[in-house]
Amino acid sequence: DPTLKLFTLNSNPELAQEIADHIGIELGKSSVTKFSDGEIQINIEESIRGSEVYVIQSTSDPVNDHLMELLIMIDALKRASAKTINIVIPYYGYARQDRKARAREPITAKLVANLLETAGATRVIAVDLHATQIQGFFDIPVDQLLGVPILANHFSSKNLDDIVVVSPDHGGVTRARKLADRLKAPIAIIDKRRPRPNVAEVMNIVGNIEGKTAILIDDIIDTAGTITLAANALVENGAKEVYACCTHAVLSGPAIERIENSKIKELVVLNTIALPEEKKTGKVTQLSVAPLLGEAIIRVHEQLSVSKLFD
Amino acid sequence: DPTLKLFTLNSNPELAQEIADHIGIELGKSSVTKFSDGEIQINIEESIRGSEVYVIQSTSDPVNDHLMELLIMIDALKRASAKTINIVIPYYGYARQDRKARAREPITAKLVANLLETAGATRVIAVDLHATQIQGFFDIPVDQLLGVPILANHFSSKNLDDIVVVSPDHGGVTRARKLADRLKAPIAIIDKRRPRPNVAEVMNIVGNIEGKTAILIDDIIDTAGTITLAANALVENGAKEVYACCTHAVLSGPAIERIENSKIKELVVLNTIALPEEKKTGKVTQLSVAPLLGEAIIRVHEQLSVSKLFD
Ligand SMILES: Nc1ncnc2c1ncn2[C@@H]1O[C@H](COP(=O)(O)O)[C@@H](O)[C@H]1O
Ligand SMILES: Nc1ncnc2c1ncn2[C@@H]1O[C@H](COP(=O)(O)O)[C@@H](O)[C@H]1O
Repeated sequence: DPTLKLFTLNSNPELAQEIADHIGIELGKSSVTKFSDGEIQINIEESIRGSEVYVIQSTSDPVNDHLMELLIMIDALKRASAKTINIVIPYYGYARQDRKARAREPITAKLVANLLETAGATRVIAVDLHATQIQGFFDIPVDQLLGVPILANHFSSKNLDDIVVVSPDHGGVTRARKLADRLKAPIAIIDKRRPRPNVAEVMNIVGNIEGKTAILIDDIIDTAGTITLAANALVENGAKEVYACCTHAVLSGPAIERIENSKIKELVVLNTIALPEEKKTGKVTQLSVAPLLGEAIIRVHEQLSVSKLFD
Repeated sequence: DPTLKLFTLNSNPELAQEIADHIGIELGKSSVTKFSDGEIQINIEESIRGSEVYVIQSTSDPVNDHLMELLIMIDALKRASAKTINIVIPYYGYARQDRKARAREPITAKLVANLLETAGATRVIAVDLHATQIQGFFDIPVDQLLGVPILANHFSSKNLDDIVVVSPDHGGVTRARKLADRLKAPIAIIDKRRPRPNVAEVMNIVGNIEGKTAILIDDIIDTAGTITLAANALVENGAKEVYACCTHAVLSGPAIERIENSKIKELVVLNTIALPEEKKTGKVTQLSVAPLLGEAIIRVHEQLSVSKLFD
């Protein structure tokens, strides 16, 4: 049986260690450093010949550095005769550049898929890919895991009553429906529209939220503009209290300040993206995807399906 | 006749403007910005359908950002129906990772070649590729231009007498020979060796430098350790004065300080890498590759050979 080897790069070493602990193996010995001019230098410090190798790396900020680390690592593994190169990408950067919305736009999410395959990846394991088309951008197997069950467990254990799960926009209704099913709750939708050109958007709430505990859900929270405006609109329209949750806590620019100043009581996020200390404020709860990814790796290694994992 | 269009990215916009001026065209309208989370956003703001497009970008520090800009631009140009996508890479980053020197090392210079082709580049124009094998890493045409003639012209115009051209190591002798031919001068070589293990290297000088004006030449000067030690050894061994020159002025880390404190009288570099103001000290002279690259672009566009250009 070929050996399973697990390596981490620099985006999320704590998560990688947790995954290794879950599986019950040691992380492979390797180092990623920079030369004086900023070029990445990778050393794999143990033999991986004939092994099934898993590499944990989120392409989070600094996205280009994290992506190049991953590409160079794949190249090194390929040249060192790994049997398979399975890349575990908890957060897939550039996922929002997934179509040509305007003329002469790149489709960077597809470019990244091509680059990973060109480097030599043989399989991808990812969590909540932003766009459904991304799986099809690859010609190698892609296992997509879902964050909703982890978020649902958290809210179930709080024994909140009279919950309504709210999608902050039309695009997220399916995701809200999945969380609502697990919490046996109804859903509502924030329906933004512009009554006339050059007039501020108004936030309509479709569904009953009066006196209820609202749980907003999105896949990515980036600058937190959408989610904090939605939270405040829910309170203004009679919600008793508002929780928010997401899989990928990008939290760039004004995000933390906006969340602190908003009506959001608790923001629940997963650790697909490592949070620096200054973003771990009192309002932010971080849950781990390590058991999910650990199980997925074990199942892939044993050639079992992961499609129903934790779902 | 298909139109020639020239675009710049962020690594070296001044050089791109000079090239456009040399050719006598305007730079194409485009912008490269970053989203709040650090992801690159590219907008091409004019039609390029059916055009022969040239993109100027050095993959200099920050190398991963500059490389991703280039890859995303190529993707956007391809999807916008460019006829050809010619990438002009004055400085090719990761060129020193050109072979597996140790077990389990990547060959990043080859990876980068594959990534550029995967994105959709159809031709490469580069200056002084660090390793001869890099041309062969590509399956598309690569035109390599030489910096030596530009450096030679500069030193010729100074009317220095009794010149000796010095290579700082064995690997650079061919390059030193080329410069020496143009200056009708002899060559010398710095021959570093370690007499016994765990003993400091000694610098032997092969060739006559006594009382002469020495011109050290290398392709890349990075931290400037090699070149400044060589310069000091030359003076200690009787050289009258020491000049140094190179094509690619990486000048990272302690480079400028070392050069300032060394016996080097003048360091002559090309502008394949943009120099920030703080590196433009009194000792540094920068010469432009814009005429060279401009002529190369004109000749490629007219389907003429560039192999003998400026040589
Ligand atoms: N990193 C990013 N930050 C903010 N917006 C982005 C980013 N990447 C892409 N976009 C934009 O987000 C939109 C797609 O988002 P969505 O509709 O949620 O899939 C497009 O208009 C993109 O131009
Ligand atoms: N960016 C870099 N900075 C410093 N050294 C490097 C860099 N990239 C590669 N190297 C090392 O430089 C050596 C190759 O240089 P050379 O012998 O001049 O081709 C190899 O040992 C590489 O590990």
